[in-house]
Amino acid sequence: MKSYHVIFQPSGRRGEILEGRTVIEASRELGVEIESVCGELKVCGKCKIKVEEGFFERYGISSRLEHLSPFAEEEKEFINEAEKAQGYRLGCAARILGDVLIFVPEESRAQKQVVRKAATERSIELKPAIVLHHVELSPPSFHDPLGDFERLKEALTKQCGLPALSIDYQTLLRLPQTLRQGNWKVTVTTWMEREILDVRPGKILDTYGLAIDVGTTTVAGYLCNLRNGKVIATHSMMNPQVTYGEDVMSRITYAMTHPENGLETMHLAIVEGLNRMIQAITEECSLSPEDLLELTIVGNTAMHHLLLKINPEYVGVAPFPPVIHRSMDIKARDIGIKVHPAANVHILPIEAGFVGADNVGVLIAEEPYNQDENILIIDIGTNGELVMGNRKILLSSSCATGPALEGAHIKFGMRASSGAIERIQIDPQTLEVNYKVIGQEEWHADLKIMTARGICGSGIIDGMAELYRAGIIDRSGRFRKEKVQSPRFRISDGRAEFVIAWKDETSIGKDITITQQDVRNVQLAKGALYTGAKLMMKRLGIEKLDKVILAGAFGSYIDTKEAMILGMFPDCDLKNVYAVGNAAGDGARIALLNRSKRIEADEIARKVNYIELTIEESFQKEFMESMQIPHMRDPFPHLRGIVREEML
Amino acid sequence: MKSYHVIFQPSGRRGEILEGRTVIEASRELGVEIESVCGELKVCGKCKIKVEEGFFERYGISSRLEHLSPFAEEEKEFINEAEKAQGYRLGCAARILGDVLIFVPEESRAQKQVVRKAATERSIELKPAIVLHHVELSPPSFHDPLGDFERLKEALTKQCGLPALSIDYQTLLRLPQTLRQGNWKVTVTTWMEREILDVRPGKILDTYGLAIDVGTTTVAGYLCNLRNGKVIATHSMMNPQVTYGEDVMSRITYAMTHPENGLETMHLAIVEGLNRMIQAITEECSLSPEDLLELTIVGNTAMHHLLLKINPEYVGVAPFPPVIHRSMDIKARDIGIKVHPAANVHILPIEAGFVGADNVGVLIAEEPYNQDENILIIDIGTNGELVMGNRKILLSSSCATGPALEGAHIKFGMRASSGAIERIQIDPQTLEVNYKVIGQEEWHADLKIMTARGICGSGIIDGMAELYRAGIIDRSGRFRKEKVQSPRFRISDGRAEFVIAWKDETSIGKDITITQQDVRNVQLAKGALYTGAKLMMKRLGIEKLDKVILAGAFGSYIDTKEAMILGMFPDCDLKNVYAVGNAAGDGARIALLNRSKRIEADEIARKVNYIELTIEESFQKEFMESMQIPHMRDPFPHLRGIVREEML
Repeated sequence: MKSYHVIFQPSGRRGEILEGRTVIEASRELGVEIESVCGELKVCGKCKIKVEEGFFERYGISSRLEHLSPFAEEEKEFINEAEKAQGYRLGCAARILGDVLIFVPEESRAQKQVVRKAATERSIELKPAIVLHHVELSPPSFHDPLGDFERLKEALTKQCGLPALSIDYQTLLRLPQTLRQGNWKVTVTTWMEREILDVRPGKILDTYGLAIDVGTTTVAGYLCNLRNGKVIATHSMMNPQVTYGEDVMSRITYAMTHPENGLETMHLAIVEGLNRMIQAITEECSLSPEDLLELTIVGNTAMHHLLLKINPEYVGVAPFPPVIHRSMDIKARDIGIKVHPAANVHILPIEAGFVGADNVGVLIAEEPYNQDENILIIDIGTNGELVMGNRKILLSSSCATGPALEGAHIKFGMRASSGAIERIQIDPQTLEVNYKVIGQEEWHADLKIMTARGICGSGIIDGMAELYRAGIIDRSGRFRKEKVQSPRFRISDGRAEFVIAWKDETSIGKDITITQQDVRNVQLAKGALYTGAKLMMKRLGIEKLDKVILAGAFGSYIDTKEAMILGMFPDCDLKNVYAVGNAAGDGARIALLNRSKRIEADEIARKVNYIELTIEESFQKEFMESMQIPHMRDPFPHLRGIVREEML
Repeated sequence: MKSYHVIFQPSGRRGEILEGRTVIEASRELGVEIESVCGELKVCGKCKIKVEEGFFERYGISSRLEHLSPFAEEEKEFINEAEKAQGYRLGCAARILGDVLIFVPEESRAQKQVVRKAATERSIELKPAIVLHHVELSPPSFHDPLGDFERLKEALTKQCGLPALSIDYQTLLRLPQTLRQGNWKVTVTTWMEREILDVRPGKILDTYGLAIDVGTTTVAGYLCNLRNGKVIATHSMMNPQVTYGEDVMSRITYAMTHPENGLETMHLAIVEGLNRMIQAITEECSLSPEDLLELTIVGNTAMHHLLLKINPEYVGVAPFPPVIHRSMDIKARDIGIKVHPAANVHILPIEAGFVGADNVGVLIAEEPYNQDENILIIDIGTNGELVMGNRKILLSSSCATGPALEGAHIKFGMRASSGAIERIQIDPQTLEVNYKVIGQEEWHADLKIMTARGICGSGIIDGMAELYRAGIIDRSGRFRKEKVQSPRFRISDGRAEFVIAWKDETSIGKDITITQQDVRNVQLAKGALYTGAKLMMKRLGIEKLDKVILAGAFGSYIDTKEAMILGMFPDCDLKNVYAVGNAAGDGARIALLNRSKRIEADEIARKVNYIELTIEESFQKEFMESMQIPHMRDPFPHLRGIVREEML
């Protein structure tokens, strides 16, 4: 097959690319990161690139627009005639048919997300599956020529009261040397008092494990000392599958539309990512990957399936059954994860197709099943998951919030990375805007010089709530064209929008705005969450929530007040609304440190009642009403004094 | 590194070989088979090759003796001055230092052994670990969105009473497709009522397993239908490790003297060999390797360790402890054996360092522990293993018979392959010889034209016993020079020998003889067996044996009368001495078909008392006396009338 010379600017990466590859595929081969929110389905428009035309002597190539495949129908929605004339294309649509020099505009460059998944302080009872035992054996003799393994078992039975142990095959292979190297004094690592995972010469005191939260966007790891339970290192990274689709459904779609290797590709992407993380996090503690004797993993059902190379196809199709619910213990080596060769991976159980092991992690961390109050737990990641109830009954459900809350399908939406507007205040009198950008300590009003690139999830929620509180949009989400007097408000191409940051405050050379369409998309997302909560209250016969817990990294960063103004969840006393950080990751850590909690996890995963919201009878009506800011028929007594009475 | 052109004749194989490689290594790379009985330790002299000197226009090479490394000290023992002048070298000693044309003489060519490990007719109670179940599931719906695995488990619980099943990870990966492909009607394969190994669409009735006997020299496989227990194909092959050493000790030595990759190399050799066998045997039955759901394997301790890649080093050093005794169930994929991806390999337990799983196989096949008589079981493979006792007590021991009984360390010794003399008769009056060659139906006397190449194990035993019976050697094994009147008897180079086949009856152009040294070597071997039996009788306080069972392929081919004349075992009524064929392989088959016998195997392996003969107090004295033909102080009433009174 033919191949062509492709150069990406401004990074300068270059290489030979096979004819017919898309620009995104080429970028991946050459290590250039281009945003691809929709998983190359040509529906998000985030992967715009620009072909530079001309003969470039320096590179010895002649780059022409015709060196890409013809402009496709799907591109029209995102690229207007003027842009088209300038050479703009969608990276997922345009295919390489000749030498090209491609410029990746600032807004299309994928950036390292600011990762916000620190471990929360929690007191966890220490009862790990991994335990060390020190034993001394008598060496073999003609009168006692017993085999090495049986000799070790005898010592473990007599000295530690552990009679029924098997041994990992890989560990058996190293046993004869180890016993002799330690002069028949060794440290034995057992798992669940069932299997010998490791035998090391001499006396060893510490042993380690890693708890992992595989989020759709972010993966977080917590390296723990299993002797004292301490988190000795935390590490986060983007889920490398992000380039195959930003949300769960687009990844499932990627797997289905690439039947030959889509699943394998995404499986390898996360496994290799985990291996890089493991390398980095152990290095940080002067350990090696072989020092990790157990891993616990949580993740939503799709991430769970993709990690294990289980076909997620049916999770994406009604009635969305997962392939397996219950927790699993798999040798890390069987999945390709490089830690101690005998280490197991404990994967927490799944509740349902759209409520996964991450939610089970939240449950064992927050234990709503041990409380009397009516609790709502909202876990806002790339997917929205809800749990409601108390010690008597628990319901769970999932909301198709869509990726709007994470900045996708928002005109200037972006991930929570450097340059993202994360906080917005609008003065109700002047309608002037103040905002804060990730990477800067101070607010715009104090700093003046800004390098805003877009708006991330928490910024969008602030912005929407403030637009409403300032009377710029009404409860139905419509811009109040007739009433708003501000140069920031304008109608452009027939579309209403409100300027958050002026062009000269940005690094992208454009005004950053919130558009009518953005408002609609956030309304859909928040409406989905609210509908879920309402339908669950109805099922439980609950009038009022005692407590609202916001779990998930995103939940930790949104302003609870603004979220309630926006109507993301039903009314609740704001002092009982709080964020608990990455409770899913904490659940993984709890399961790592306390094996009894694994049993609890399996039990609660089967006990919690999953309800499929979309098939509830009143879903449509409820959803329409929930789009309102706040819900049109619900009293919000706790918003009194926060939002003007006329707005409620 | 430099490389040279090497050509082997008469096969004509040729190729580039790196400087410094031995001729044997070169032969292996080019697919030329050269005998290597000692595992390249330069002690057997079986790998003699001849360098052809001169310029060979046809091949464009100049071949010189100096193109090999200088003649080594160790070669002198096997290559005399005349041979040296002709260009003879040992293939394991001579290293390639330039282009060479190498001739492999007939006697140095490794040949396919005549494999004699057929399955014996035995009635076996059918109770396999592998069972098929047919179940029908209801498809998932919104009101019953249970996951695939839990749905299957529910059906297995309700329809088959199997509530506690796990599922193999690899099988889980295929589960969603399989269930839907079978329209929710499937056949489930379970293992030990513990794990789901396979799920296939529709109704399947037959399932298969393979029992394997990994002998030091020969590997035999028995493919069984697990539904009815029938052996539907039998396959044998040479153990591919033979090129690294013919007996157990030389393979252990190979592993120890090649610490970087010796173990790995031999492990891969047997695994790849088994994979080839599996491919061939399944093809023969129009099955595929994936149709094999379980394997059972027996083998001596060294073969067991090498197959599993367990370091055999300590098995070779006093007090010879194995690394593990008990039986193991390992996923075939973890060892690299290519059958059904979820299939287990059940490896039978080991008694001691020198009495392995093959002997346990013999035990569960012959069940001496269920009998009242005093039984001696001799399993003569490349190693000799003895079991003696009855239902009250059982002893086992192993004898360093050395490889003489298999034709090694015998001047014209060879494996049981085409051209080997396997039967010998000597007329006590005329001292004329009649013999039979493998590959020919008739005896020499009837056929006249023969193509004898050497003498195999059963031929050696016949020959020795006949030499004794004809009065050519005395009971001490010494040629009776003063009394023997025959052109066949001669002293050559000061060494006495007796011609079995004249030069013109052979294909090697030399008289085939039995030498004084050959007699000594066989005496050492048979003496070891006899000593073992005697010491065990002493331990048990037994005066006389009720039954002698010859197990092992070799045991099936020796003449029981000749073996008793030779004094391979103590006196016994010849009608109670019989061969049972490959009982070790039968044991593997029994364990495959009846899981209860696996428990029996584990129990008996720990119950049988292994005794280390060499540390018995009277060993030396007993061994000296046992070298006699027959034992000098033992009565052999059952030899009356068979051997002349004056000889006893």
